[in-house]
Amino acid sequence: MNKQGMEQGRQRAEDWWRTDIIDMRPGVIRLRGHEIQDLIGNISFPAMIWLMLRGELPTEDQAGLLGVALSAAVDHGPQAPSIAIARMAATCGVGINNAMASAINVLGDVHGGAGEQALVFLQEIAVGVDAKGLPQAVSDRLDRFFEGSNGYVPGLGHRFHPVDPRAPRLLDITRTYAENGTVAGKLVNIAVELERQVALRKGKLIPLNIDGATAVVYGELGFPAPLTRGLFVLSRSVGILAHAWEQSQKPERNKGPLPREWLWRYSGDEAALE
Amino acid sequence: MNKQGMEQGRQRAEDWWRTDIIDMRPGVIRLRGHEIQDLIGNISFPAMIWLMLRGELPTEDQAGLLGVALSAAVDHGPQAPSIAIARMAATCGVGINNAMASAINVLGDVHGGAGEQALVFLQEIAVGVDAKGLPQAVSDRLDRFFEGSNGYVPGLGHRFHPVDPRAPRLLDITRTYAENGTVAGKLVNIAVELERQVALRKGKLIPLNIDGATAVVYGELGFPAPLTRGLFVLSRSVGILAHAWEQSQKPERNKGPLPREWLWRYSGDEAALE
Amino acid sequence: MNKQGMEQGRQRAEDWWRTDIIDMRPGVIRLRGHEIQDLIGNISFPAMIWLMLRGELPTEDQAGLLGVALSAAVDHGPQAPSIAIARMAATCGVGINNAMASAINVLGDVHGGAGEQALVFLQEIAVGVDAKGLPQAVSDRLDRFFEGSNGYVPGLGHRFHPVDPRAPRLLDITRTYAENGTVAGKLVNIAVELERQVALRKGKLIPLNIDGATAVVYGELGFPAPLTRGLFVLSRSVGILAHAWEQSQKPERNKGPLPREWLWRYSGDEAALE
Amino acid sequence: MNKQGMEQGRQRAEDWWRTDIIDMRPGVIRLRGHEIQDLIGNISFPAMIWLMLRGELPTEDQAGLLGVALSAAVDHGPQAPSIAIARMAATCGVGINNAMASAINVLGDVHGGAGEQALVFLQEIAVGVDAKGLPQAVSDRLDRFFEGSNGYVPGLGHRFHPVDPRAPRLLDITRTYAENGTVAGKLVNIAVELERQVALRKGKLIPLNIDGATAVVYGELGFPAPLTRGLFVLSRSVGILAHAWEQSQKPERNKGPLPREWLWRYSGDEAALE
Repeated sequence: MNKQGMEQGRQRAEDWWRTDIIDMRPGVIRLRGHEIQDLIGNISFPAMIWLMLRGELPTEDQAGLLGVALSAAVDHGPQAPSIAIARMAATCGVGINNAMASAINVLGDVHGGAGEQALVFLQEIAVGVDAKGLPQAVSDRLDRFFEGSNGYVPGLGHRFHPVDPRAPRLLDITRTYAENGTVAGKLVNIAVELERQVALRKGKLIPLNIDGATAVVYGELGFPAPLTRGLFVLSRSVGILAHAWEQSQKPERNKGPLPREWLWRYSGDEAALE
Repeated sequence: MNKQGMEQGRQRAEDWWRTDIIDMRPGVIRLRGHEIQDLIGNISFPAMIWLMLRGELPTEDQAGLLGVALSAAVDHGPQAPSIAIARMAATCGVGINNAMASAINVLGDVHGGAGEQALVFLQEIAVGVDAKGLPQAVSDRLDRFFEGSNGYVPGLGHRFHPVDPRAPRLLDITRTYAENGTVAGKLVNIAVELERQVALRKGKLIPLNIDGATAVVYGELGFPAPLTRGLFVLSRSVGILAHAWEQSQKPERNKGPLPREWLWRYSGDEAALE
Repeated sequence: MNKQGMEQGRQRAEDWWRTDIIDMRPGVIRLRGHEIQDLIGNISFPAMIWLMLRGELPTEDQAGLLGVALSAAVDHGPQAPSIAIARMAATCGVGINNAMASAINVLGDVHGGAGEQALVFLQEIAVGVDAKGLPQAVSDRLDRFFEGSNGYVPGLGHRFHPVDPRAPRLLDITRTYAENGTVAGKLVNIAVELERQVALRKGKLIPLNIDGATAVVYGELGFPAPLTRGLFVLSRSVGILAHAWEQSQKPERNKGPLPREWLWRYSGDEAALE
Repeated sequence: MNKQGMEQGRQRAEDWWRTDIIDMRPGVIRLRGHEIQDLIGNISFPAMIWLMLRGELPTEDQAGLLGVALSAAVDHGPQAPSIAIARMAATCGVGINNAMASAINVLGDVHGGAGEQALVFLQEIAVGVDAKGLPQAVSDRLDRFFEGSNGYVPGLGHRFHPVDPRAPRLLDITRTYAENGTVAGKLVNIAVELERQVALRKGKLIPLNIDGATAVVYGELGFPAPLTRGLFVLSRSVGILAHAWEQSQKPERNKGPLPREWLWRYSGDEAALE
């Protein structure tokens, strides 16, 4: 082959896979422009996550707050479909990476996506705060919400926990970071006002849940809403791995959702081939 | 860019993805060398599966027998991890393809792989049949097996069904196809002799199970053992889809493995941050 | 434990997993009310798919036409992300079921979902056909479509094939089944009229593609639109398996998207830790 | 229903899902025995990972070194099948969690599993060090290895990087942690001696690679070899998310492995339906 020509075809193909994230040559790996050996050991794991996703290094406090939110949502137990799936998969003769993949795969709009929806809701309120003040901005958004729905306001309420112990803790910590200037604190205030006004309308407290609380943190740190689902996946992967690993240490094979000697109820009709 | 050179680079890249399976040009699709419009409507779905996997068209009887085996293993109910996973995934706000993927992903060595192991076992016996006769070939292989294991012989026994109703039916049908010359029938005979000798050794009948029976069929049809797991995936995908679809028609969200108001038992220690 | 009490808890759990699809007792497996040994060997694989998804047995012609559509979409080559993923996965040391799962998982709204959208579009037209006639029903729907979009009408056009050879073939076959009364033929007529009117509006033929053609078949057979994506997964799984299997027979390890000696272009900024 | 009886059935089911990892009651979440609000904000994200996987809190230095290793392997660019898969999936109309799952799923024995194999190799050497000294223990293990293989020693060598810049950096850092007593340093010494002896046998330096270097770190920290693959998944998930996210910001749909106008080469035979 003509060497020059090959180079041009190669260039077209290499352009097809271009990326701003990583650069590589033999002996050289650069992440977002930084030599990797300069990053290793010099920045924390949350800082590395931030750099990879956003292209620039966070301050130590930004990385610290990101790590707090990532740590908060690692697990919610085997009643969560993702965790149950990880444990069942681990008994089926597949790799631990496969068990994790089957589990992560279900962290969709319903199971995990609530944080994304909550952040969008908070951001829609935020747009109006400067012009009309916090209480009015919240009230207007709630008016619109309750026109179309009787359901739960995104980020509020939990079917199991009367108060989710993670949420107030996350808000407190975010407030501390707002005081030292790491974040603006605007979404914290919106969340608190939202909780207050919904309690007034409903006649009872429907407290901020973990999705709402992490939405506040990720939003304060400037992450776009759709990316927060990815952050949730990174966080929940820890619990998924822990459960898959624990299960893989046990002798069970082909673990089903119910005790082995139980079945399921057939609710269909009888039929016959005629 | 130099046009000739680009062509050469393109050729290198196109070689990288070369395949014997499909050929395409604008307006033309050929599968294994056949114009697709000549295949559509002229061959059955199992025949298409055969053609894609093996590169040549089966006889009608070969395709017929393949379809029989594919139909036999479509479902084993929600106690199977794959089916439970499909149903739980369907409640998490992901697509039906995602629910299927999470489920198919767990059809590994333990959950689904037994057919592959059973076929290998049968084929190892088959190697000795011509030289030493069927009874001796089976007996020798069993001697070696029981030296190393007290467990179940691959393809025999079921923890739930005393006799799996699918297995004798599949053997009967395969015998019919052996009589008309579609298959040789050698593995059918091996399976029957294997069942007989294991019963003598164990003092009770451990009947052929579905994995053993489909192994016989796929082996008689000439499929290599590792490919039978892929055939099982095609087969079980039908049940996985049916369950994911049924579940998606129900209002449940985030369905866990146990009734909603139940939890799990914590079996670990208490601890305290000091 | 109290036996009666255990039974009641068990009943609650077994209700949690209730299904109309499968019933099981030791030695008995019933699919949609039919003993499985009565189904095996008596119905075709497409008929089994139909039974599992819809709860009743199809006529032989209905099953025949379903098989035709399932066969038509098995593969579109390694430029399809699903096929490329299956091949790359097969080189990474995972099982063939895992390779299939990673591939099937991407058959979402964009890659595979077009058939679902096409069927919805055709069904929206069908609603108006009785009242205002076919040409007007099509015209009205197109008016509404082009108000909101300049893009491709669902089910028409292909970026690669000027005429997709699968589409006219599928329409022809469906017409034959309409003539013998297996299907009504209404959606075939809508598709043809749609193609005609879009050609008039655009000044050139934008022919029916494979998504539109399979949408016609599945719709004529009475499958709901969201389930057609599941049918597409069953169909494309065949090609995915064929490619994963072919790749697994080759020695390549860790196969990337480009020839091994090529990289990708870094398009980001340089940076430095200061 | 009889309340006592229901409770007993429930207990059986709750035992089925027992775990040492998480305990939950309304308003209470405990991870490994710790109230979650006591953990949030008080331990780093790597410390949380450690706690979840091992059941006890690490020292700050242990968590620090774990974070170093997790940060080192986040990405290796789009030529890695996992990264290419994440990017292609992101263009197919699936969620970011689905794109991540398809990618993580391929981190099997070949793509990612090398670290596990390297750690097993290092640990096998470690067993002999006390009895026969480091050089002899390494030499004996290499003798056995080269009897059975001409291939690469696990953890050494890279097809792309003459020296992988991550490896020496990770060894240096681990040495520092050995000096302050966080780890024993035994595996660091083994790795160095291994590299030295292999260089002598081969007549050229085959340097430690990233898999070998992270194996050293994880092994020094006391993680069992099979769990290191899970740690690699957590690490590489960061790059997978970054690439899926970057790709999802671009307008490409159905991105294939090659530039859109290129195909693949058909290497099979022609055929004809006769």
